[in-house]
Amino acid sequence: MNVGASSTRTQSVHLFPIPAHACRVAHLPSTKFDRWALARIQRTVVSAPIRFELWDGFALDSGAGPRVGTIRFRNRRTLLGWVWDPDLNFGEAYMSGAVETSGDLVSILEAIYHALESSKPRAWWLWQPSNNGHAAKHNVHHHYDLGNDFYRLWLDREMVYTCAYFPTPDATLEDAQVAKMALACRKLRLKPGDRVIEAGCGWGSFALFMARHYGVSVRAFNISSEQIAYARSRAKVEGLTDRIEFVEDDYRNIRGTCDAFVSVGMLEHVGAPDFPTFGRVIDRSLSENGRGLLHFIGRNQPAPLNPWIRKRIFPGAYPPTLREVFEHVLEPHAFSVLDVENLRLHYAKTLAHWRQRFSRSAPLVSEMFDETFVRAWELYLAGSEAAFGTGSMQLFQVLFARGASNAVPWTRVTG
Amino acid sequence: MNVGASSTRTQSVHLFPIPAHACRVAHLPSTKFDRWALARIQRTVVSAPIRFELWDGFALDSGAGPRVGTIRFRNRRTLLGWVWDPDLNFGEAYMSGAVETSGDLVSILEAIYHALESSKPRAWWLWQPSNNGHAAKHNVHHHYDLGNDFYRLWLDREMVYTCAYFPTPDATLEDAQVAKMALACRKLRLKPGDRVIEAGCGWGSFALFMARHYGVSVRAFNISSEQIAYARSRAKVEGLTDRIEFVEDDYRNIRGTCDAFVSVGMLEHVGAPDFPTFGRVIDRSLSENGRGLLHFIGRNQPAPLNPWIRKRIFPGAYPPTLREVFEHVLEPHAFSVLDVENLRLHYAKTLAHWRQRFSRSAPLVSEMFDETFVRAWELYLAGSEAAFGTGSMQLFQVLFARGASNAVPWTRVTG
Repeated sequence: MNVGASSTRTQSVHLFPIPAHACRVAHLPSTKFDRWALARIQRTVVSAPIRFELWDGFALDSGAGPRVGTIRFRNRRTLLGWVWDPDLNFGEAYMSGAVETSGDLVSILEAIYHALESSKPRAWWLWQPSNNGHAAKHNVHHHYDLGNDFYRLWLDREMVYTCAYFPTPDATLEDAQVAKMALACRKLRLKPGDRVIEAGCGWGSFALFMARHYGVSVRAFNISSEQIAYARSRAKVEGLTDRIEFVEDDYRNIRGTCDAFVSVGMLEHVGAPDFPTFGRVIDRSLSENGRGLLHFIGRNQPAPLNPWIRKRIFPGAYPPTLREVFEHVLEPHAFSVLDVENLRLHYAKTLAHWRQRFSRSAPLVSEMFDETFVRAWELYLAGSEAAFGTGSMQLFQVLFARGASNAVPWTRVTG
Repeated sequence: MNVGASSTRTQSVHLFPIPAHACRVAHLPSTKFDRWALARIQRTVVSAPIRFELWDGFALDSGAGPRVGTIRFRNRRTLLGWVWDPDLNFGEAYMSGAVETSGDLVSILEAIYHALESSKPRAWWLWQPSNNGHAAKHNVHHHYDLGNDFYRLWLDREMVYTCAYFPTPDATLEDAQVAKMALACRKLRLKPGDRVIEAGCGWGSFALFMARHYGVSVRAFNISSEQIAYARSRAKVEGLTDRIEFVEDDYRNIRGTCDAFVSVGMLEHVGAPDFPTFGRVIDRSLSENGRGLLHFIGRNQPAPLNPWIRKRIFPGAYPPTLREVFEHVLEPHAFSVLDVENLRLHYAKTLAHWRQRFSRSAPLVSEMFDETFVRAWELYLAGSEAAFGTGSMQLFQVLFARGASNAVPWTRVTG
């Protein structure tokens, strides 16, 4: 680890500038107050088998059973920052290197998630500002315009940046992403000539897949310029430009009618205040016998996204419960829910693949950005894997149709 | 048709006594006022291709396309009753014979459902009284204690009185009920030794099926004395008394822990005000890695059950939306929804089978009760078939587990 050293590399992009003193190791021994602060932190996750340690070696052990790892604070500032706002400052401190961990990071985070499990549901999203067109553009740019070269380092061949579907747990990531797209198409019963609208199309892999394998025509929307440019060039190379239109625009500007409305990995970026708008967009788009598929990160109870993830990784994001989606997106338009599948363990596995690939590419990522960025992304990927692995986050696929449509499948499909 | 004549049969049971004058044919020609009332009725379902006719032959035609049937009013009292409260009094008038129909009853009702589709969602259930233990007992007795001999006339061999699962549309009802039970067991991943709690067990078919084919032990609850007696005698005959306990008690009194909590066709009788109680019962029953399955009649938007059905057929019943079930039953306990399937077309088909069998047994049913009862049940079965067939009602199967449990299926099953 070489935090801060990257500031001498002129070619790298510093997205998360960290002052040099932030991760300096304190040279004074810990005081009674420091030990009180450490005990306070330890008590919040008292059932997690983790050692908490100060810069001078003073340590407290939590939980029962074999210890999964150690969390070490390098200085008092970091210690107090964590006491003050643990949800935000764990990430900040980890990213800067002011907190160090030993042991498997995912296991440490899983232990923390399990220990924190008992929080009560609240209407968190009421506090969230609406992601209007401008904010949405800013939020998406923050994450998805980090550069196609960056994502190419660790995503699959098709550049699919959403939960894969592993027919068996040992399937490859490449196969699992193809299986996910095929499963979604089969759920939607796509047939040649169908008109598909895709809200949030990433690098275009799913739109290309649908057009290529199911003979449908697709209008795919995205506000990330980098992703749209990539998707358009792929459509050209594959000779699919007559069947796919990649539109650089906000989902609110979707017009026209479709036989299938799909949105994979976008609803969690819409934000709860804009769910009614999203519902109206679907309602005005879907034909009488159309089918819709929403694939999104969700929760079992309403809770805000971790504030560090929201600050550093996904500004404006909110993973909703099924109830919130049904209440604000589907029920107002009397859509009929045909089929829901929860793929959270598939997302934990997808993230494990990404994390492994990311880790192999870390030296290159550090060259592109810096070490702080690498640590931030390691934490984001490990934290997400732990969240899906412990049930703190869910991945829902919801298939629906208009209430009065009888053009619905007689039996459902499985992967 | 011989309405009222059955009042001379002393052996029959008159559940719905109808005064003789209710269905008398008016001998005076219709007035301007009668024709105004008929036009008013016709306008509420103006798009339905139905003829509305008065006792003297005056008729109004609605809708476009081929006419599906005629509704004929025998007297002014019936006509005005319909204007006053169509939801209740269509049923009352049909049952008594004061309204006659020609053409297929299901098609007529489907046309009406389609024409009425545009009503807005409201929090109807706020007006509904809670089904406390006493009310629940009364409500259940009203319907389920009509006599096992009655239900044996037209249900399948296993006496399953809930939506079947037809692997193909032409499967027999007998096969489809077995397929439904097998599908539910496979969704629940039952294995030998599992402890199952069943809330609302009907005549015990599913409890017997689970114990027989999956080697589980079952505690099955029901407050219908007739059903419990029948179920117990079947368990004795099949030598399954060591593995099944049929408990004549309310779901609120369920105690003990289980690996699988199942409820097939009961939630719609619980009533929305008691959903939180039902959620607490599940929460205190389900083991750490347990699975739950709720199979229930629902809606796409909140709406009350038709008042005639509630008065004559299912007092206290309320078919909820998925959102209402998630909000009041599952979300408060952080249950994780794994899988939802909508089987409404399977219920339309189940009802078509029941209706056909019921119709064949109508003379016997008329002997047991009277002609009014036969007409009431014909309307209930036809109305239900039309409701599921047009998407006015849904049939949901919801599979769930505790949020932190990873003992969840990797892939889902299909029928």
